[in-house]
Amino acid sequence: MVHFCDQKHHVVVIGAGFGGLSVVRELEEPGVSITIIDRSNHHLFQPLLYQVAGASLPSAEIAWPVRSLFRHREDVRTLMAEVQDVDTDSREVLLKDGSRIDYDTLVVATGATHAYFGHDEWEQFAPGLKNLDDATTLRARILSAFEQAENTTDPALRAAYQTFVIVGGGPTGVELSGTIAELARKTLKNDFRSIDPTETRIILVEAGQRLLTAFPESLSEYTRQSLEKLGVEVSFGQPVTECSAEGVVYGGQPLPAKTIIWAAGVTASPAARWLKTEADRAGRVIVGADLTLPLHPEIFVIGDTAAVTGEDGRMIPGIAPAAKQEGQYVAKLIQSRLKDEKPVLKPFRYRHQGNLATIGRGLAVVDMGRLKLRGAMAWWFWKIIHLYFLIGTRNRLSVAISWIWNHSIGYRGARIITGGKSPDPDKSAVHSRSEE
Amino acid sequence: MVHFCDQKHHVVVIGAGFGGLSVVRELEEPGVSITIIDRSNHHLFQPLLYQVAGASLPSAEIAWPVRSLFRHREDVRTLMAEVQDVDTDSREVLLKDGSRIDYDTLVVATGATHAYFGHDEWEQFAPGLKNLDDATTLRARILSAFEQAENTTDPALRAAYQTFVIVGGGPTGVELSGTIAELARKTLKNDFRSIDPTETRIILVEAGQRLLTAFPESLSEYTRQSLEKLGVEVSFGQPVTECSAEGVVYGGQPLPAKTIIWAAGVTASPAARWLKTEADRAGRVIVGADLTLPLHPEIFVIGDTAAVTGEDGRMIPGIAPAAKQEGQYVAKLIQSRLKDEKPVLKPFRYRHQGNLATIGRGLAVVDMGRLKLRGAMAWWFWKIIHLYFLIGTRNRLSVAISWIWNHSIGYRGARIITGGKSPDPDKSAVHSRSEE
Repeated sequence: MVHFCDQKHHVVVIGAGFGGLSVVRELEEPGVSITIIDRSNHHLFQPLLYQVAGASLPSAEIAWPVRSLFRHREDVRTLMAEVQDVDTDSREVLLKDGSRIDYDTLVVATGATHAYFGHDEWEQFAPGLKNLDDATTLRARILSAFEQAENTTDPALRAAYQTFVIVGGGPTGVELSGTIAELARKTLKNDFRSIDPTETRIILVEAGQRLLTAFPESLSEYTRQSLEKLGVEVSFGQPVTECSAEGVVYGGQPLPAKTIIWAAGVTASPAARWLKTEADRAGRVIVGADLTLPLHPEIFVIGDTAAVTGEDGRMIPGIAPAAKQEGQYVAKLIQSRLKDEKPVLKPFRYRHQGNLATIGRGLAVVDMGRLKLRGAMAWWFWKIIHLYFLIGTRNRLSVAISWIWNHSIGYRGARIITGGKSPDPDKSAVHSRSEE
Repeated sequence: MVHFCDQKHHVVVIGAGFGGLSVVRELEEPGVSITIIDRSNHHLFQPLLYQVAGASLPSAEIAWPVRSLFRHREDVRTLMAEVQDVDTDSREVLLKDGSRIDYDTLVVATGATHAYFGHDEWEQFAPGLKNLDDATTLRARILSAFEQAENTTDPALRAAYQTFVIVGGGPTGVELSGTIAELARKTLKNDFRSIDPTETRIILVEAGQRLLTAFPESLSEYTRQSLEKLGVEVSFGQPVTECSAEGVVYGGQPLPAKTIIWAAGVTASPAARWLKTEADRAGRVIVGADLTLPLHPEIFVIGDTAAVTGEDGRMIPGIAPAAKQEGQYVAKLIQSRLKDEKPVLKPFRYRHQGNLATIGRGLAVVDMGRLKLRGAMAWWFWKIIHLYFLIGTRNRLSVAISWIWNHSIGYRGARIITGGKSPDPDKSAVHSRSEE
């Protein structure tokens, strides 16, 4: 068993996403030591991940080494490790390498991953977008599809390589469709000799009746129209019933497509299994109004891992600001308990700040309650907000430069194919390993 | 068979390195069409690759999509494909996917790869550094070794994780040793709680008697002293006789080390086999004074793939300026032949401009004949030269910003572990795939 600091109240935070970081940031107390555990070595700014997949940003610009963020916090220890289980009786986190970390308070903020609704075998054909490796894999697949289309002389195969299906019309699906459409129709326009990239088909398949269901209907409709102007075909009401190396089936019709991207659903991390507690249908741990487990006041679950019901009776959405607010609340509650204040903190209260989504260059939708924006205004608003929330000054600067460059001269600097995984033997030539 | 443009003289260039690009750049003629084939989609600025491995630069900043470099050259077609063989009788390049590309003139510029001197099984334990995937693999291994050292409580294992062996004292070995030493002693100094990164051992093992044999002895000695000041142990005269997951053996002594990097030797690509022609011991194709094959004036071999003897009887070195000059010569020779000029061009003449190598921050050696520099002056000289030769304005700018950032505040922004391959099951937890 690893003891970090026996004298102090030991808080273990699992997950270095927006929720986990927010707990650590807010909780700086002489009597507290913190261990933050993540299986990767970096915090990822997920809202910009689609820009890495779309070759607009290099991956390092949206990720920060966790231990470097807290290098000057002597009270914080960072562990890059995978969690296997939690022993809630002995109050220990069990790591995959066999070691155990004891805690006084545990915060679980492990996020969510793709959900294939019982068809996990689709993942190999229709990867999702949750981490940096996903993004570089998608980037390699998207760019390689154009390369393969250029190389083949078979018209049917060429068409399949030039067909991209995005499953799911939420923010990620909308952003990916828009970015691929712009890549094909603008960035790559003059790059090929045998194919015409502007003939690329991009099909966004939404099983429901509209895009971006978190937004008002007028903005959903604006988004559909904007995507169609960019050349994206939007399909409603017909769920995808099959994914394979050949393409998808939806509405009973097969569509040959060599690139399928999954943006249709997420499921929470296996935290409920670790904690042996109740979860909702999306795998989220059901927590009380103070974000703790019913029988374990020393265990908090926050962010996309938690099912939290707001004051209005609606579920709190799985977005970064919600995770941050929950993290801040948990930090305050721990402080209040240590000071033995009575009455303890009020229940968690979520302040919804709004929803933002980009569609393409100069196109976005913003819903901040009374303030509803669309088009160029919304897009600038989106840019400024996201630059503001990017963590390091250096990253802010280099993302800003990448954006200015992309948008002024339309060049995407990150169009590099590296070790992407591919289910398609046709594509094996894209792996740029030097093995000769 | 693929015909790109039947009416014109078709030049096929295999390899988009410094040599291949230089041919395409110089050869812009109404009567010529060019196909450039590379198995990756990007040109790589190899001299800065060690900075990607050392987490100083993101990978996209030193790579450019080949087809984007020539997007406005209608006479140039880019193919991302792997070459399997060359049929010199029918004048066709055979690709792995079965297609054939016919040529009138062929330029082979496929570079070199790591040589393990008959011990190819060492590659998995001691990867080399030739392409972007190598660099991200090395970066992941180096950063993960510190993470594993932090996680373990076994002192022997911890020491093995904190021991880095670099095999080979050429420019790559020197640059990697220096950059790892600075990473451990400066960048990571405050990042850990259980280990002291400044206790890291970095051992540079050179089988010969001095570092950087292409430089004068005084600069080799300066380099050794500078590396030792940075905390690198330099060993001479004892070749590595064993590499395994446990470490290396050299001088008959085993040294436990979890990270081994191979910078000891290169061998040319299999071009000699494709061309069924004579190669030297390093696998390089032996070409005549006009860089053509003895019996095939229509086939040129240049860059690291060719063994070219200079006017002074010495081999022309395998460095970027030599490959560029050879490419320029080939382009001029093809032009001269098409114009049927007599006499044809004189034999290739190499103009040696000098040797540069960096050791660490503010430390480099420069040998330009009469001008010999070392220390800070050499380092600034090196920076300016390399920025100048970086291709895109956008990349020049962002590399410059990365450098200013690294050197003014000592922060390395690219310390991100992504899908690195690892031979060590202990390290499997570092793969940040979301598979739960």
